[in-house]
Amino acid sequence: MTDFVLDWEREKRTGVAEAVLCEGKSVAQVDAILGEAGERRLLLTRLDESKHAGLAAAVRAKLDFDPLSRTAFHGAPKAPALEGAGIVCAGTSDLPVAREAARSLAFAGFAAPVIADVGVAGLWRLMKRLDEIRTFKVVIAVAGMEGALFSVIAGLVEAPVIAVPTSVGYGVAQGGHVALHSALATCATGVVAVNIDNGYGGACAAIRILKRGA
Amino acid sequence: MTDFVLDWEREKRTGVAEAVLCEGKSVAQVDAILGEAGERRLLLTRLDESKHAGLAAAVRAKLDFDPLSRTAFHGAPKAPALEGAGIVCAGTSDLPVAREAARSLAFAGFAAPVIADVGVAGLWRLMKRLDEIRTFKVVIAVAGMEGALFSVIAGLVEAPVIAVPTSVGYGVAQGGHVALHSALATCATGVVAVNIDNGYGGACAAIRILKRGA
Amino acid sequence: MTDFVLDWEREKRTGVAEAVLCEGKSVAQVDAILGEAGERRLLLTRLDESKHAGLAAAVRAKLDFDPLSRTAFHGAPKAPALEGAGIVCAGTSDLPVAREAARSLAFAGFAAPVIADVGVAGLWRLMKRLDEIRTFKVVIAVAGMEGALFSVIAGLVEAPVIAVPTSVGYGVAQGGHVALHSALATCATGVVAVNIDNGYGGACAAIRILKRGA
Amino acid sequence: MTDFVLDWEREKRTGVAEAVLCEGKSVAQVDAILGEAGERRLLLTRLDESKHAGLAAAVRAKLDFDPLSRTAFHGAPKAPALEGAGIVCAGTSDLPVAREAARSLAFAGFAAPVIADVGVAGLWRLMKRLDEIRTFKVVIAVAGMEGALFSVIAGLVEAPVIAVPTSVGYGVAQGGHVALHSALATCATGVVAVNIDNGYGGACAAIRILKRGA
Amino acid sequence: MTDFVLDWEREKRTGVAEAVLCEGKSVAQVDAILGEAGERRLLLTRLDESKHAGLAAAVRAKLDFDPLSRTAFHGAPKAPALEGAGIVCAGTSDLPVAREAARSLAFAGFAAPVIADVGVAGLWRLMKRLDEIRTFKVVIAVAGMEGALFSVIAGLVEAPVIAVPTSVGYGVAQGGHVALHSALATCATGVVAVNIDNGYGGACAAIRILKRGA
Amino acid sequence: MTDFVLDWEREKRTGVAEAVLCEGKSVAQVDAILGEAGERRLLLTRLDESKHAGLAAAVRAKLDFDPLSRTAFHGAPKAPALEGAGIVCAGTSDLPVAREAARSLAFAGFAAPVIADVGVAGLWRLMKRLDEIRTFKVVIAVAGMEGALFSVIAGLVEAPVIAVPTSVGYGVAQGGHVALHSALATCATGVVAVNIDNGYGGACAAIRILKRGA
Amino acid sequence: MTDFVLDWEREKRTGVAEAVLCEGKSVAQVDAILGEAGERRLLLTRLDESKHAGLAAAVRAKLDFDPLSRTAFHGAPKAPALEGAGIVCAGTSDLPVAREAARSLAFAGFAAPVIADVGVAGLWRLMKRLDEIRTFKVVIAVAGMEGALFSVIAGLVEAPVIAVPTSVGYGVAQGGHVALHSALATCATGVVAVNIDNGYGGACAAIRILKRGA
Amino acid sequence: MTDFVLDWEREKRTGVAEAVLCEGKSVAQVDAILGEAGERRLLLTRLDESKHAGLAAAVRAKLDFDPLSRTAFHGAPKAPALEGAGIVCAGTSDLPVAREAARSLAFAGFAAPVIADVGVAGLWRLMKRLDEIRTFKVVIAVAGMEGALFSVIAGLVEAPVIAVPTSVGYGVAQGGHVALHSALATCATGVVAVNIDNGYGGACAAIRILKRGA
Repeated sequence: MTDFVLDWEREKRTGVAEAVLCEGKSVAQVDAILGEAGERRLLLTRLDESKHAGLAAAVRAKLDFDPLSRTAFHGAPKAPALEGAGIVCAGTSDLPVAREAARSLAFAGFAAPVIADVGVAGLWRLMKRLDEIRTFKVVIAVAGMEGALFSVIAGLVEAPVIAVPTSVGYGVAQGGHVALHSALATCATGVVAVNIDNGYGGACAAIRILKRGA
Repeated sequence: MTDFVLDWEREKRTGVAEAVLCEGKSVAQVDAILGEAGERRLLLTRLDESKHAGLAAAVRAKLDFDPLSRTAFHGAPKAPALEGAGIVCAGTSDLPVAREAARSLAFAGFAAPVIADVGVAGLWRLMKRLDEIRTFKVVIAVAGMEGALFSVIAGLVEAPVIAVPTSVGYGVAQGGHVALHSALATCATGVVAVNIDNGYGGACAAIRILKRGA
Repeated sequence: MTDFVLDWEREKRTGVAEAVLCEGKSVAQVDAILGEAGERRLLLTRLDESKHAGLAAAVRAKLDFDPLSRTAFHGAPKAPALEGAGIVCAGTSDLPVAREAARSLAFAGFAAPVIADVGVAGLWRLMKRLDEIRTFKVVIAVAGMEGALFSVIAGLVEAPVIAVPTSVGYGVAQGGHVALHSALATCATGVVAVNIDNGYGGACAAIRILKRGA
Repeated sequence: MTDFVLDWEREKRTGVAEAVLCEGKSVAQVDAILGEAGERRLLLTRLDESKHAGLAAAVRAKLDFDPLSRTAFHGAPKAPALEGAGIVCAGTSDLPVAREAARSLAFAGFAAPVIADVGVAGLWRLMKRLDEIRTFKVVIAVAGMEGALFSVIAGLVEAPVIAVPTSVGYGVAQGGHVALHSALATCATGVVAVNIDNGYGGACAAIRILKRGA
Repeated sequence: MTDFVLDWEREKRTGVAEAVLCEGKSVAQVDAILGEAGERRLLLTRLDESKHAGLAAAVRAKLDFDPLSRTAFHGAPKAPALEGAGIVCAGTSDLPVAREAARSLAFAGFAAPVIADVGVAGLWRLMKRLDEIRTFKVVIAVAGMEGALFSVIAGLVEAPVIAVPTSVGYGVAQGGHVALHSALATCATGVVAVNIDNGYGGACAAIRILKRGA
Repeated sequence: MTDFVLDWEREKRTGVAEAVLCEGKSVAQVDAILGEAGERRLLLTRLDESKHAGLAAAVRAKLDFDPLSRTAFHGAPKAPALEGAGIVCAGTSDLPVAREAARSLAFAGFAAPVIADVGVAGLWRLMKRLDEIRTFKVVIAVAGMEGALFSVIAGLVEAPVIAVPTSVGYGVAQGGHVALHSALATCATGVVAVNIDNGYGGACAAIRILKRGA
Repeated sequence: MTDFVLDWEREKRTGVAEAVLCEGKSVAQVDAILGEAGERRLLLTRLDESKHAGLAAAVRAKLDFDPLSRTAFHGAPKAPALEGAGIVCAGTSDLPVAREAARSLAFAGFAAPVIADVGVAGLWRLMKRLDEIRTFKVVIAVAGMEGALFSVIAGLVEAPVIAVPTSVGYGVAQGGHVALHSALATCATGVVAVNIDNGYGGACAAIRILKRGA
Repeated sequence: MTDFVLDWEREKRTGVAEAVLCEGKSVAQVDAILGEAGERRLLLTRLDESKHAGLAAAVRAKLDFDPLSRTAFHGAPKAPALEGAGIVCAGTSDLPVAREAARSLAFAGFAAPVIADVGVAGLWRLMKRLDEIRTFKVVIAVAGMEGALFSVIAGLVEAPVIAVPTSVGYGVAQGGHVALHSALATCATGVVAVNIDNGYGGACAAIRILKRGA
């Protein structure tokens, strides 16, 4: 039985290229997929350090790997990097997810600054960066715990706000469901949500928005 | 079998007087309780209009009934009304719960202004009232939906913030659990929560704080 | 105490004008809000037939009310209607939510065709309309039950897909959580979600996307 | 106290032979069960590599062990292998479960091809294999994440579709509940579900269908 | 916008004909669907008595309506009725769901006896009917509360057991989730489940099994 | 601050002696508690092998430790062992919990045979032991997965049935909630439940029943 | 098809006689069951006032109906009433459930006093009745909300405590799950639980205990 | 991108100084934060032993670290320690959380005695300490399992009771949700709750109460 069928026409069909979710795949499977890819470009997500270390040396040599975001580029990012997206991040612990979004955007040819640690407990931190945030055409907001950031930002800017809830938190917040539900139940308009910890998904939605709106 | 045992010593023991939760009790039971009370003061909560209308006329004549908050005073509020508590309310639909808190405080001898419709979707509404809110010794914050108000207020004031989540909302917010969880998972400090729609409980906590802190 | 504070600057700040969620508000409160509005434009959502019937006659005379979607226009829709958004709907029972989205877009000056009953149980129905769907700059997909439509569409088009899960279904699907979770857990890219039955929210996100992308 | 009572008459009674779920049993217990079995045939499921390694050498020598599916054959598969069942698998990460189904069928005397990586994000992959899938008398569909595959397949084939949801996924999909619920809430007909990750259970249901239908 | 698209080719494609779930559809929509159907056969499910009473008289005259199961036949059942399926029902309160299954089978041309009130609290009731149950090629088992019947039957017969959990029960059993989960977590083999209260779905699965196995 | 206060009067007050739940306590705390106990009898529960190994040698020397049930006796079991209780166990994997119950009973002076592996998938195994089970004055039934055993037994015997659900199972059964809910939602009478995996709690309830009933 | 099969041997087999849960059964079905019963004794539970009023006059004439507990006796209670059970009830709103337990015991020949309104918010109310409670051989404790009563009583008496959680409460307590979980998670020993609002089930367990212990 | 923005004005604004939640932050990030802090005071929470051991030696030298509560002081506690708060703790296993509260209070300049192991299973332990507990101006109550302690204490004292539910427990109590829900659903007044295991949050609320009430 063949284990995988790569969807090389996906970018043409949907505007976003095929990527490989490495979580749940064995080292051998990732090696095989990259072998099949040859010189073609591929983004790898959720590739943790130990799995990366286990890949064949020849494969590893061709990857631009970032351990914090657990992403790897197989092939170079598209150039030149286009502007329009921005990432706003509630706390330091949310950075791996924010960076997964930033790297996914970068590989697809979009530059996206990350504005970190602007959670609402100290609202001045957000206000200080508001003018910059208002310049984005699409905002990716990354937050865990109670996710109040989503509503507050959406009430202050014109861009659509893609909420990426994170699993940062404990007790009732464990696993990220409170942040997700806050994004969905928001009293503000213009907030849409992707799955918990899905920085890649937030990036893909931003890419579709930016590509189709151009 | 005797159906009820009133706890007349409760105020001496805990600082908060006995009250009667009318939900789940029959009209006959409420009539009997008020008969037993005689001239003694009692607060009635969750007394809806139809149950109130069903009470014996003599009983009804002795009640100061407020249909919005579903509360009734049996006996006069304590006087003079003491200051220190304030109620902040996210939306118009949260007012029944906010008013239950206000009436419970009033009956116990505490005046508490209600600052309504200051939800975070339009942050300027909250900011405009911030100086006033900062004067309170204890803030009761009432909000449904995603409950972002709790975190935002707690990051801006010195008083303890008693979050009263409400069941206002639909979809994932149905029943008030998102607002409750936002209060508990807050990134700010100084937020404590009571049960969903429990304006009376928020008031009781405020009373204990104000009485013991004096 | 004042019950409401309208946010007339919201459109300037966020691109989407203030609207009034009528669910949870009394007839008297809706009357008062529309009195305060005067000649200003306002969208009313979740205004069911009986509440509409209870409004003051003078108020009702000024409303363009649609019972299926439970929406009312206070003031005329913006003109001319701009193109770019399209609504795709899985089943007949999802139409009230789809129409809430369509009416919210229309009031804000955006035309959006509704393509109904293209659920995946008969995939040919969707395929037959695919060329038309591919012309949209943003797709609002409305589905209840298992919500498989979200993933299937997102795999076939370039536009961002705003999933509006509905509460259509019973048993495990009761309340719309399965459709919502399918949107969030999708194996496709470019799907973002709003709250269950939130056609208005789906429309607002589309408006932000279309306005900022222009 | 005796720890186990093997049900050797199960095949005669139900058409499916006794099997041993090794998860939750100690190495000593598995050794004892195989000792008791003697020359009789037994299927072992959820036997992970470390537990297999811990078994007595004599026991291990008699087992045909497959680490990916965590299954072992004690005794030879029935022959000749009968046709009629087919396994369709959404993604590479679902293969361990698909293979548990295939091995369980094989041991009972049924051949079942596995058609892998035909998830709906790239619908053409499924369409390409549709003619083959339509030849099956019973389809075992294996999918995690949002499980849209179950509905799409059931709308295209005549065979009953046994959905085996998998725990592949994260965030709201964690643990496989979204895929399970999608199978149950499907808008298509002819889908039935077994427990999450229960490839063995899917195979047993297929065996009963094929045996009784013959 | 057209509200519905009937899938007349469904029977050819999947072996089970198009049916109309009336729950969530307005009287006007059901009238329109039956108008479109003309002389073609259609099964209607979840048509409650008041909705049936509201249909146009001409439409109603053409329906064979059964209030207990909330089903209606538009056109005659297929004949002659084929044997092979049997329905086993735990308690009297489960009968509406059992009858929905029986009527759905009957319309499609399959006779299915209903064996009622054989719940496991009095195991002799089931044992007394066991010989008859063992003659079925496929068993549809209908049970609410704790759903122990599913496992007990599956341990005693050779046929596949389609579990239809019902919402009969209160407290933890409210809504049918315990019965559903018991079917999925069963220690027996050969049990598959459909959604709660989905007698129609159980019948459709049985039809696919009987048609493909013939 | 003192870490613990032993309740030496508990047996006199409630009929069941103080015991120490070791899970969540450090080795140092367990050592200290046993030091404080001196020559007094104490039952230790949830003492896993590594924590037992970490205890002071002098303490360990005084313990009768059983790793399967994770229990230890500090002091001798009461004698002579009284009869009346019996333990019935669905599967081999439930034995650690069954044995926790048996050891807890033994320490308190009650003999309780364990009848293992009589799950309902092979009903004959239970029927074969039924005469013996009917002699018990109180039955402790231990089962995971779907917990059908609780209802079946309760329909066949006169004794009260204390259901001890276990966390044996996966998918929807993970953590034991399905078995617990089956015990609570049972269609049979005379079933009462304790917490998941709480063999000790099942034993304590049996002790109270046997002591008060004598 | 026959709708019901009464289990007249149940009392001989289990010590507790057959009873009829009227919830979910139609008036016609209850009439038919009582017709079948003839002169035999039967307890009816969850028979609400409107269903009782709908029964055939001849049937109604033979029933001793109690609307608060929704129970009816068909035939006389057993005499003389045996002692040993006692019912302790947290609040006035829990009385319907407490009375269902008391009536179920009475019909089976057991007298059980109800001690009402002894919730832990005013602990003195419980302490005042403690000597009486300590005389019971089995305590049925009925409580909603947080269910703290179960643990407190079990720490003070020797009898087994059958916790009957009620659905009294709102917010997180809605439906009775908090009270149920408190009973299961208790830090005290000797507490066992039945389903929420299941006063009848609590009584049946008490009957088995008292009959077998005698 | 800068990873963090410390909020040095937080104490002036809210009365509670900035603190660092170390869970979810890397050793490098904690090192960097403390580098940025320089001589300024900071409380560190959820700093487990291995992360503490990984910090730069120079950083570690400046910390007063307590492994049980996983807290560290960077800078000296405020002096003199003010009185008014007291901590009451149900069981030995709850001590890490209780101590997190005590250390957080101490760093902010408040002395708070911890009264341990006064769970309600042995009510005399609580009663023995009641006079002391009644002297507190605010009580922090720490309990896991069923959390009955919250209601019992609140019924006996005048001070507000801040419930800190802990994740101590198993089965239904796993993760602390039962204790949390008991605090929220309490039948007593004056109980407010913070997140599960959030001793730090309980302390912050107490600080706000004591500071504003003075």
